[in-house]
Amino acid sequence: MLTLGSIVAQLGGELRGDPSLQVTRLAPLETAQGSELSFLSNPKYRQQLATSKAGCVIVSAAIADEAAARGAVIVADDPYLYFARLTQLWKRSRSKEDGPAIHPSAVVDPEAVVDPTARIGALCVVERGARIGANTVLKPRVMVAEDCVVGERCILHPGVVVGADGFGFAPVKGGWEKIEQLGAVRIGDDVEVGANTCIDRGALDDTVIEDGVKLDNLIQVGHNCRIGRNTAIAGCVGIAGSANIGANCTIGGAAMILGHLTLADGVNISAGSFVARSILKPGLYTGIFPIDENASWEKNAATLRQLYQLRERIKALEKSSK
Amino acid sequence: MLTLGSIVAQLGGELRGDPSLQVTRLAPLETAQGSELSFLSNPKYRQQLATSKAGCVIVSAAIADEAAARGAVIVADDPYLYFARLTQLWKRSRSKEDGPAIHPSAVVDPEAVVDPTARIGALCVVERGARIGANTVLKPRVMVAEDCVVGERCILHPGVVVGADGFGFAPVKGGWEKIEQLGAVRIGDDVEVGANTCIDRGALDDTVIEDGVKLDNLIQVGHNCRIGRNTAIAGCVGIAGSANIGANCTIGGAAMILGHLTLADGVNISAGSFVARSILKPGLYTGIFPIDENASWEKNAATLRQLYQLRERIKALEKSSK
Amino acid sequence: MLTLGSIVAQLGGELRGDPSLQVTRLAPLETAQGSELSFLSNPKYRQQLATSKAGCVIVSAAIADEAAARGAVIVADDPYLYFARLTQLWKRSRSKEDGPAIHPSAVVDPEAVVDPTARIGALCVVERGARIGANTVLKPRVMVAEDCVVGERCILHPGVVVGADGFGFAPVKGGWEKIEQLGAVRIGDDVEVGANTCIDRGALDDTVIEDGVKLDNLIQVGHNCRIGRNTAIAGCVGIAGSANIGANCTIGGAAMILGHLTLADGVNISAGSFVARSILKPGLYTGIFPIDENASWEKNAATLRQLYQLRERIKALEKSSK
Repeated sequence: MLTLGSIVAQLGGELRGDPSLQVTRLAPLETAQGSELSFLSNPKYRQQLATSKAGCVIVSAAIADEAAARGAVIVADDPYLYFARLTQLWKRSRSKEDGPAIHPSAVVDPEAVVDPTARIGALCVVERGARIGANTVLKPRVMVAEDCVVGERCILHPGVVVGADGFGFAPVKGGWEKIEQLGAVRIGDDVEVGANTCIDRGALDDTVIEDGVKLDNLIQVGHNCRIGRNTAIAGCVGIAGSANIGANCTIGGAAMILGHLTLADGVNISAGSFVARSILKPGLYTGIFPIDENASWEKNAATLRQLYQLRERIKALEKSSK
Repeated sequence: MLTLGSIVAQLGGELRGDPSLQVTRLAPLETAQGSELSFLSNPKYRQQLATSKAGCVIVSAAIADEAAARGAVIVADDPYLYFARLTQLWKRSRSKEDGPAIHPSAVVDPEAVVDPTARIGALCVVERGARIGANTVLKPRVMVAEDCVVGERCILHPGVVVGADGFGFAPVKGGWEKIEQLGAVRIGDDVEVGANTCIDRGALDDTVIEDGVKLDNLIQVGHNCRIGRNTAIAGCVGIAGSANIGANCTIGGAAMILGHLTLADGVNISAGSFVARSILKPGLYTGIFPIDENASWEKNAATLRQLYQLRERIKALEKSSK
Repeated sequence: MLTLGSIVAQLGGELRGDPSLQVTRLAPLETAQGSELSFLSNPKYRQQLATSKAGCVIVSAAIADEAAARGAVIVADDPYLYFARLTQLWKRSRSKEDGPAIHPSAVVDPEAVVDPTARIGALCVVERGARIGANTVLKPRVMVAEDCVVGERCILHPGVVVGADGFGFAPVKGGWEKIEQLGAVRIGDDVEVGANTCIDRGALDDTVIEDGVKLDNLIQVGHNCRIGRNTAIAGCVGIAGSANIGANCTIGGAAMILGHLTLADGVNISAGSFVARSILKPGLYTGIFPIDENASWEKNAATLRQLYQLRERIKALEKSSK
């Protein structure tokens, strides 16, 4: 358990309250109890402050006085970032003795290179020629295939597959001829990859995930994609082969990016949108069919199939009304 | 092999026919042969009854006489439910000796609590603090992470990941700071989770899957979601963080539910629909772009991008025609 | 390393250039260096030929003279197919000694039948009654469940789950009764299945994947589907139960196919499209909401929810203008 005093000693910030208070849990404002620590980063939730029973709240300077009126506060420049660092401190304070760096059930090829500070979880597979960088963590049941490289301080969650074959076939009379995928996958530093996400190896060159990229669960990254630095991608997204995605982009859940196209740096794609063309200007882009009661949807969807004709009819009306 | 007599003895229902008939297989009406047992639950398929070669058919009282004219029948209040229970009886009658309760290749932490009646399949991982309830089955290659709880009589299919980190990061200059996910996952009783589905652990509180929930394959459930009792969700659905889904809902395949919203009890979402707002009234909701021949789609989709302008043009016409 | 001469000796084609040239890598035209071998199949990229530094280029007869003017060429009837076969030759020339046919960490039931020429990767599970055909490769962490059959020369990539239970439940007061899935999965010859893809076992009959089918990553194939010969399906596609998909179809990434419907042979579905009805005529079909800047999308999407009313207003205008 941490005291308020020890938290501020390690993470900074200004404590207004009793430094000896023992924090039993980090908790959301709505449910926090008297020995629990919460945070307020979005002014939208300011109302919850008055009614919260939290023993201490992390707040910005702008509302420090208001918050202090109800109990202990930690004043921080960026309460959300402070909270993020506090979760890390909290986790370290709770964590028990870890087992061996490479779990005995993992299958690591003798010709793979695993940094001594890396951790390889239970039932992982690391194939020959693969390299795992310093302080990187492979959770259980991760696969890193032949010759693929994972940088430093990465986290790969359970079920991740790095370096399966890209989907490449040449048409041949009555079928398909396999194109062996001779490239690999290169993952930079500080990358996180969510559970059961797949990143395919390149056909000739490598598939590249740059530093700081964050991928959620069940994402498909096709062969020869590049995902630029610090881009964050939510769950269930599909990225087809050879897509070139810029730095500092965000892609919402279940969006789909077609292959061989480019997203500029700083492009934001709304969840559920289908990207069928390159987007070369930063900004927010969306393409979602709005949900509706089924009966309304049916009428509108049926009409949608005649939309082009409706436009022609409007043109005709405009012409005749002149 | 079961006889018609032994089936009725165990499951009830009224047999009209020879109780000593040996049933060699359960089969659909169209393909069933003389020693095979079929069922008719949907009156829509009544026509198939006349031509079916099935040795016996499970039917409702309403069509028992008609069906009995062609051969043996079992009359049941709810033929589909009767059939479901028959598949269970059939499976039990065929099943061979099982191996040990915990497969020797599974990696179960000494600090995990596994009920002695539970079964843990080959190459599963159960981490410390996890709890697996009575009669629950983990098929091979399932992962239940630290401190997560699975109730009684659950089935988790191969590749399921329970308790990977939720996707949480605070923006920081030039990148992202990880928010450690300090909550866990709590799964109730009688829950089934399909292959390669992922249920993330909560950030502070737990992610909750209530009793009787059925999840199909390749579903993503984000951190801090709640899925209410007996809700059934088809494959490839994505549910973003903190979504609150009611009881007795159905969500069709590949639908996407945005985070931090609420679905009331009894809401039905059509397959492929994108839910971007809370839905507080039971009913069927849909949002799908209708598929069409590509040439027609192209014209309609191009027009769709001017739809708002078309509305303005209609307004202008209406004004000028007055 | 291969020489140009040895390549032509093994794969055919006409070499114009020095047969003793050592090829160090296969590479795309844009990045190939002097000791590297590239190909030009799509005339669209003809411009890249002039500026490429590739030591040799595989081309068709139509542009052989033009290409030969800049350096060595291999002239082939179908350069892309030639390239595909070259990647296979290349891979064989690089591959090192393989380990044992069944990796010692794999869990193969004594009652499974694995052809002696098949390879079972690390941490695979092959259950009783399953059959794995000649020269088939299970990459690490693949699961083939009870009684499922995989043909010859197949490749199953990491994380694939063949034969998990289909999603079948009968409604019962206040919940769901499980329908045990008594069928299996039958996969033909020359089938490739991508990472973390799931193919469910049938309810009564089998789920069938015919010869030559190619499935990309993270695809869901529901129970009792049939996928016809040589059909290719891109990543993240969902196919609901009992869909009957013809031969020689292509289905783009993240498309969704509803259950109990039929696609004729030779149907092509665009990526991201939702197929809610049978398609009985070959051709290209699409249904995608076009992406746009968010502000434009918002206006158009809002109008879309009144589309049916707009049509009525157009009708009224047409009537009054007569």
